[in-house]
Amino acid sequence: MNNPTPINPKQIAGERAAELVKDGMIVGLGTGSTTAFAIQALGRRVAGGLAILGIPTSYQSAFLAAECKIPLTTLDEHPVVDVDIDGADQIADFIAIKGGGAAHTREKIVAMSSKRFVVVVDESKRVDVLNHPVPLEVLPFARQLVLKQVAKLGGNARVRMGVNKDGPVISDNGNFIMDADFGAIDDPASLGEILSQCTGIVEHGIFTNVNKVYIGKKDGSVDIMET
Amino acid sequence: MNNPTPINPKQIAGERAAELVKDGMIVGLGTGSTTAFAIQALGRRVAGGLAILGIPTSYQSAFLAAECKIPLTTLDEHPVVDVDIDGADQIADFIAIKGGGAAHTREKIVAMSSKRFVVVVDESKRVDVLNHPVPLEVLPFARQLVLKQVAKLGGNARVRMGVNKDGPVISDNGNFIMDADFGAIDDPASLGEILSQCTGIVEHGIFTNVNKVYIGKKDGSVDIMET
Repeated sequence: MNNPTPINPKQIAGERAAELVKDGMIVGLGTGSTTAFAIQALGRRVAGGLAILGIPTSYQSAFLAAECKIPLTTLDEHPVVDVDIDGADQIADFIAIKGGGAAHTREKIVAMSSKRFVVVVDESKRVDVLNHPVPLEVLPFARQLVLKQVAKLGGNARVRMGVNKDGPVISDNGNFIMDADFGAIDDPASLGEILSQCTGIVEHGIFTNVNKVYIGKKDGSVDIMET
Repeated sequence: MNNPTPINPKQIAGERAAELVKDGMIVGLGTGSTTAFAIQALGRRVAGGLAILGIPTSYQSAFLAAECKIPLTTLDEHPVVDVDIDGADQIADFIAIKGGGAAHTREKIVAMSSKRFVVVVDESKRVDVLNHPVPLEVLPFARQLVLKQVAKLGGNARVRMGVNKDGPVISDNGNFIMDADFGAIDDPASLGEILSQCTGIVEHGIFTNVNKVYIGKKDGSVDIMET
């Protein structure tokens, strides 16, 4: 008797979301392990004849898309994206916290350029109240000022340190990443607005424009929520 | 009979503001032609024994301060600045538009780190209602999205082009600069808050935290306003 292949909730969420993509679409390609399954599924469909153009949100997704032979384009050529598929560190209803991969700034630019922003996660990411530290992309010049501003808001921010690199993580845009812990976030939309006002923060990881969520579960089913 | 030296309103504003600086202070060194007179005046005082540390807001002010032998420090070492002296493209009461020199992001980080933010201008910069295009520092990846967002706000933005450099101006932080014309700006503080929410804008050129203004006039006098 063979053991059945174990179910990977990330994989079923990513692959299911990839089915949204139709011929002729401009597709935002998110970053992270769950989205990677969507990109690989799209690569198989492209090999079978699907005609799409991808817009990567990071070096990671650009490299993976190239490997999967998905033709790429840019927001300069195609400023309107049909659908953007991306992961999340945590999601409550239709608000996500992103940036664990240090890619949330480009991810948000692509998400905001998209007609539909689709999030793919496994069920461990779903919560009732967001409490994940909020990733902040920060200009190196503003490190101290941002630490001070976050403290004033009642948060506790740390510069994210590199692994396989001494010193701080540097984002694909050349900036620092901070993880700002605010405990339970009762009103994430308001917190996002306040963080946007802070001088020196390039972009924060609270995403309020999620249109559809695919949640992969251990039992092999996928919960789908749509606004 | 000798002609008297012509009065330079920028020079008298800059030099007068430099008198605010006292021994032991951490001093923000702004960017531009008016501030340059303040930096030069500080250099002369340092040569005479004044002990200060400067924090430059741009390569331009760092180079000039080094030339004037003003010892420099950083916001990492000294996160609290005693006084910051900087110019403006336009000022109405205590709200300034800055960024003509593409330096407004670092300028704002230093201004927000300062106990007192002092603006030096000649009288041509003073208006009742701000109507100067608002400089925006923009991530290159977000060019089209920012153009779209500014248009939605009723503005008209253009990417600033280089002179002595083909293509767009690149800021000291490696980004694009857009000049966003909104016509007369009735409520600049609100416009600033809205621009801060736009994805892809690193920082906008509306400064609402001015504490003191020195306005140099052709008649040789300096108007001083203080909150």
